[in-house]
Amino acid sequence: MAPPSPSTQRDRIVIIGAGFGGFQAAQSLAGATADVLLIDRNNYHTFVPLLYQVATAQLEPSLVAYPVRTKLRGMRNVRFLQAEVKRVDFHHKLVDLGDNLIPYDYLVVATGAAVHDYGVPGVAAHAFTLQSLREALELRNHVLQCCEQAAFITDDRERQRLMTFAIVGGGATGVELAGALAEWLRGAVRRDFSELSDWGRVMLLQAGSSLLPEFPQRLGNYTHRQLEQLGVQVSLNTKVTACSEQDVKLSDQEAIATATVVWAAGVTANPPTLAQPSHQKAKGKLALRETLQLVEHDNVYAIGDVAYFEQSGEPLSGVAPEALQQGVAVARNLRRQLAGDSPRPFRYLNKGRLAIIGGYGGVGSVLGVNFGGWLPWLMWLLVHVVYLPGYRSRLLVLLTWVQNYVMGDRALRQLSAHTDAKH
Amino acid sequence: MAPPSPSTQRDRIVIIGAGFGGFQAAQSLAGATADVLLIDRNNYHTFVPLLYQVATAQLEPSLVAYPVRTKLRGMRNVRFLQAEVKRVDFHHKLVDLGDNLIPYDYLVVATGAAVHDYGVPGVAAHAFTLQSLREALELRNHVLQCCEQAAFITDDRERQRLMTFAIVGGGATGVELAGALAEWLRGAVRRDFSELSDWGRVMLLQAGSSLLPEFPQRLGNYTHRQLEQLGVQVSLNTKVTACSEQDVKLSDQEAIATATVVWAAGVTANPPTLAQPSHQKAKGKLALRETLQLVEHDNVYAIGDVAYFEQSGEPLSGVAPEALQQGVAVARNLRRQLAGDSPRPFRYLNKGRLAIIGGYGGVGSVLGVNFGGWLPWLMWLLVHVVYLPGYRSRLLVLLTWVQNYVMGDRALRQLSAHTDAKH
Repeated sequence: MAPPSPSTQRDRIVIIGAGFGGFQAAQSLAGATADVLLIDRNNYHTFVPLLYQVATAQLEPSLVAYPVRTKLRGMRNVRFLQAEVKRVDFHHKLVDLGDNLIPYDYLVVATGAAVHDYGVPGVAAHAFTLQSLREALELRNHVLQCCEQAAFITDDRERQRLMTFAIVGGGATGVELAGALAEWLRGAVRRDFSELSDWGRVMLLQAGSSLLPEFPQRLGNYTHRQLEQLGVQVSLNTKVTACSEQDVKLSDQEAIATATVVWAAGVTANPPTLAQPSHQKAKGKLALRETLQLVEHDNVYAIGDVAYFEQSGEPLSGVAPEALQQGVAVARNLRRQLAGDSPRPFRYLNKGRLAIIGGYGGVGSVLGVNFGGWLPWLMWLLVHVVYLPGYRSRLLVLLTWVQNYVMGDRALRQLSAHTDAKH
Repeated sequence: MAPPSPSTQRDRIVIIGAGFGGFQAAQSLAGATADVLLIDRNNYHTFVPLLYQVATAQLEPSLVAYPVRTKLRGMRNVRFLQAEVKRVDFHHKLVDLGDNLIPYDYLVVATGAAVHDYGVPGVAAHAFTLQSLREALELRNHVLQCCEQAAFITDDRERQRLMTFAIVGGGATGVELAGALAEWLRGAVRRDFSELSDWGRVMLLQAGSSLLPEFPQRLGNYTHRQLEQLGVQVSLNTKVTACSEQDVKLSDQEAIATATVVWAAGVTANPPTLAQPSHQKAKGKLALRETLQLVEHDNVYAIGDVAYFEQSGEPLSGVAPEALQQGVAVARNLRRQLAGDSPRPFRYLNKGRLAIIGGYGGVGSVLGVNFGGWLPWLMWLLVHVVYLPGYRSRLLVLLTWVQNYVMGDRALRQLSAHTDAKH
């Protein structure tokens, strides 16, 4: 068929969310015969896998936040709008921004995930989370604030409470954060606060029977040993039943006095408010066809953590490569639809899985081979620096890592000027 | 006389404020025969002269905020306490932290300056200022937010209001900020927001009859021409009578519609609350003897912007080198007092004065020679990178400048995660 002439009224594609999926979809639609509008509440793309390094004062916040407009500079058909989406109306094909209605012909919902507290009391009010740059900075500031307070306190019990850091959830985020926090307390914190040398205590509370359940048991055990070498107290089969400003309560009635509970125990889909009901799967995820279109709507796609996609009978696990590949696929399918062709099924190509622990240790499952040690640790760092957007960020992250790991120190110990303490 | 034996109860010196004066005093007291306690509300030292570069997205916030504890690591007799000082009691020799009383034998008041609004209505509520890292980030976020809003607005008047930036005060801060803001709008902002190419408007409102009144008139005129070449609209003899969310009002009844008023028109001393009255001079500054001791108290010193010091019949002008030299001098005098000797008069050695404008232009008065052009511009940059604390910060600031000036671009366009919008 003939290409649409330039004088034709062009279709408008709206993408909600500039995370891995949405940001990739926008880039993959550069030059398409449609006007693309990417909407996000922030004007930057957050590189979520490195947020734990911001929270532990390893990386500058700006290195994990890439300005969306900079990436879109050369793309004439892609625009960006910083706004909060209030509601989506599939029938009238409108995205409601509160003070503005944006019409679309095609829609990509890529709004990601939110923290899931499983109804545990106190989590929403008192626990720290690691979903956004803001949250990572809040955690960093809070840890530093705890150290500053603990350094001048005479009451040993209160000092121990301030220097106890409880992390809930033994998946990748919890493991990464526990390792990095332990390294921080042993290294830079100890150098800056000689009076706190022996007080730092990191606890990792895991409800399941092993760490990193998405990896083979052997690697979970390796992770467990590695974390204990770093000084982390790992508790398996330990459910959290409540948390407060003063402590975290466990299912065996024990209460651990702590000023810091980090909730890394799970996420749930975070779709925009929908004017019409849509078929949802586990954890509120939108139900998809295999083409990534919503079950009910030919012109609406969903990708990333907000979408439910099964492959070989298993749902995707919610990692960045899945969202990135879906972003590419959705762009390809949209181009097909614009050209009058029908969309094609998506298939995720799993290149493997890596997790970093700390102390130069990591674990990996790549091409069917499972391994723990310094090799997956190094691979994790390299993969993440390669996928980080922007040459400047890549270079500076690399330099920062070299400095951190060679010197065992942290360059970023100051508090942010914005101390929005949670407690 | 014999040196005090180690078994003697050591004197305690408390320094309030980790700005240029206080931070320097603490460092210069390393190894003294007294315990030194440095108190600041932040755990970092802010390099104030570069804040305008943070506000205009040229520098990472962390590069101008140096963690106090890191600098004090090797000093056994110097400790740091992050706290807000509520009150100082000279008679009982106590610093009151609200929940804690800190006794001192010697005190150094180095609490700096606060913005002075001269009673102009609306300034406190609506104007942006540049005294702290937090304020610099607020201004940066606000400018970016104005651009994001202006890019999607259809009302031309509102768009013009959002893209008009009024800076009040033609001293060094106002000039530096006006130049940097104009460069930013012409460069990186224009690249990211093609729809805003011709809308950016920077106004510099100066009450006096020339810019940079602390320099000879000829250099003020040079600065005026240089700023106009950068696109800044300079208004001399223009007093601001009020400002609001909507506009800034001038003494000739004119109102300029703007969403951004930056108040750089002056500062006042910011002493802690004093339990006893103390002799104060112009702008609330504490009256000193020529040894930097308070007029009333042998054991209390004041330095920097909180102190009034005259030399050759003129008060010091409130720049960083003055505070730094006073910090060194106060440490020397304290060591003399500890040894039973009497303090010596302070004398400021003026090495000259530089101001940066932008567009590779600056002005300087060094050793009696007045000059404008690229040489003082370059000297300004070099001097500030040399005085910046920390090798890492120096290196990264240098690299960032090379990148910014060579590429005419800004690497730091994203909003902070903490958007505490003032309006």
